[in-house]
Amino acid sequence: MARENFLVTPWEIKGKVDYDKLIDKFGTSKISNKILDRLEKITKDLNIFFRRGIAFSHRDFDKVLDEYEKGNKFFLYTGRGPSGKMHIGHLMPFLFTKWLQEKFDANLYIQITDDEKFYLKEKRFDEIEEIAYDNMLDIAAIGFDPEKTFIFKDSEYIRNMYGIVMQIAKKVNLSTVKAVFGFDNTTNIGMIHFPALEAAPTMFEKAPCLIPASIDQDPYWRMQRDIAEQLGYFKAAAIHLKLLPPLTGISGKMSSSEPDTAILLDDDEDTIKKKIMKYAFSGGQSTTELHRKLGGNPDVDVSFQWLYYFFEENDDKIEEIRQAYSSGKLLTGELKQLAIEKVSKFIKEHREKKERAEPDLKKMMYTGKLAKEMWNRIY
Amino acid sequence: MARENFLVTPWEIKGKVDYDKLIDKFGTSKISNKILDRLEKITKDLNIFFRRGIAFSHRDFDKVLDEYEKGNKFFLYTGRGPSGKMHIGHLMPFLFTKWLQEKFDANLYIQITDDEKFYLKEKRFDEIEEIAYDNMLDIAAIGFDPEKTFIFKDSEYIRNMYGIVMQIAKKVNLSTVKAVFGFDNTTNIGMIHFPALEAAPTMFEKAPCLIPASIDQDPYWRMQRDIAEQLGYFKAAAIHLKLLPPLTGISGKMSSSEPDTAILLDDDEDTIKKKIMKYAFSGGQSTTELHRKLGGNPDVDVSFQWLYYFFEENDDKIEEIRQAYSSGKLLTGELKQLAIEKVSKFIKEHREKKERAEPDLKKMMYTGKLAKEMWNRIY
Repeated sequence: MARENFLVTPWEIKGKVDYDKLIDKFGTSKISNKILDRLEKITKDLNIFFRRGIAFSHRDFDKVLDEYEKGNKFFLYTGRGPSGKMHIGHLMPFLFTKWLQEKFDANLYIQITDDEKFYLKEKRFDEIEEIAYDNMLDIAAIGFDPEKTFIFKDSEYIRNMYGIVMQIAKKVNLSTVKAVFGFDNTTNIGMIHFPALEAAPTMFEKAPCLIPASIDQDPYWRMQRDIAEQLGYFKAAAIHLKLLPPLTGISGKMSSSEPDTAILLDDDEDTIKKKIMKYAFSGGQSTTELHRKLGGNPDVDVSFQWLYYFFEENDDKIEEIRQAYSSGKLLTGELKQLAIEKVSKFIKEHREKKERAEPDLKKMMYTGKLAKEMWNRIY
Repeated sequence: MARENFLVTPWEIKGKVDYDKLIDKFGTSKISNKILDRLEKITKDLNIFFRRGIAFSHRDFDKVLDEYEKGNKFFLYTGRGPSGKMHIGHLMPFLFTKWLQEKFDANLYIQITDDEKFYLKEKRFDEIEEIAYDNMLDIAAIGFDPEKTFIFKDSEYIRNMYGIVMQIAKKVNLSTVKAVFGFDNTTNIGMIHFPALEAAPTMFEKAPCLIPASIDQDPYWRMQRDIAEQLGYFKAAAIHLKLLPPLTGISGKMSSSEPDTAILLDDDEDTIKKKIMKYAFSGGQSTTELHRKLGGNPDVDVSFQWLYYFFEENDDKIEEIRQAYSSGKLLTGELKQLAIEKVSKFIKEHREKKERAEPDLKKMMYTGKLAKEMWNRIY
């Protein structure tokens, strides 16, 4: 953590993340207005994550756009570690990815790192597999193109991708993974080898790979970028998303294993209401009187932040809410009520989609156009 | 190396191996006369490796015999790292294993560690695969039961065995593989993970696994024995063979990459003759006169040692040769001639078998009874 008061690794987020500092620290680039203008020319509009600066950092996204403008396609890659139930924070990169797939008509690969979570957690493999299946239904419910999306578990697709995994593993030595991931003598050899599996899908096509993912996954792409060209592939490009703040305040990371911090995708309306009322950190004043007088602070108010990150899509409306809250017109209870309504509606719709998602998931895993191609391919 | 003047690891042999010290160092057991007597009661005879003390050490072979006598079957497992052409030293464990398979009617698994050699060598994967295929033909030529033998490359069978590999990798941490295999910061993460693959076949059946192999592979079984029971499997049992001394003298290890040290399985008669005449370290005296007077030393004479290790099967004959050489009756040139004849005959017969080995190899890899079962099994 050195002099910063925050820590970001693929397995841990501590403190209030300073995203500008993270750009410096990780050596990534800020998503500039220039890039947004270029993007908007192609896509005609910008999604909420770009408009609001949630997609805040990138690696080589400009180069991907260069290639695209020359008529060269790229592909998308993202993933999920099935360690437990999914919460709303987990969905952000997938919603973002869906938009990119639609706008660019791109193939999408979604890796389910069941091996990694088995190595990391005190769980049996069959427990991990049960979680993985539930997570994949949540992901399928997002509505990706089932003919152009391939969802795979490492434990199954290792059979086809071991060739690439070996190429990568040969190029990465112990000192690199110790430095990049903080592995030590107590780390098991599955975890030490795992970065070769997470990097492998970036080489599924001989084309640029664009990875929309939370910033905490960046160490893998740094490692990949050091070796990709030697192996005849493109350096991975990435767009980094900010992490949706936990209910309990804008420090740290939402976690399914600490239910007070998160709304899970299967929380019912009552639970959502209770959690937000009870735990959502408020930027309001201690009494109504004071609040009317001094106003609230939307920058630290989690209900406001959630609306801003993705529940209130309307830009005018979110600014109205910000004004009303800052000025004291809107009370904390009222703001929480707005969040409860939006979150409940989202979760209800998601649940309905999830209940119908099985046929699409089957296509994305095995029978759709891309999935079939992938199972016929040995790398 | 500490105070010993030799070093034995899976990748390196240095100095003249003191096999008694190795038993102490590795914590294995000597193959006692008691075990040989028990074995002979079951098998009716003993092969040359047991009779001559080439099979000199073991782990739990007595327990395997206990189980066998109770009517419980065991299975055999051995392997080959396809780093180059095979030489006669490489065949010893396979010839030994064939005898065990015949006597005990046991299933046999032969792992071809193409991934390990790719990680270790400055070779492309397609080069390794070419070597692997040639090596597998050499192995198939030994004449294992094609319905009870499964030969597999890691790069292919990973698809079915990744489940076991993960179970093992989760239980083995970095400090263990550093201590057991001497890995350090420059080791690539493929090699660091590889011990999980080499240990996996010991868990292909819920039965005792007996591994006939050169002593240098023992570190893998030590690692396996520390975790097997936690995972619900048997601790691997092993029979360790001495290493056939290199042509150049009884120190170090025969190596295909140093052709002066070894007879390769595809050396022609002329080459065999030249190599033995030129390089085979002699225990004889510097002149014929002195030799007749003082006699030769069979203990350091490589031609004699090779005849003793496996080319002269007849026990009376080998003792005659020893006497004749020690007494000075048999000259170095004559002893070399005996070795040349035996080795040439062996290699010629092997080559003929290898030319006909393809159909059996196919059975052992894919279509034989055991192979088919194994491809239908997901661990």
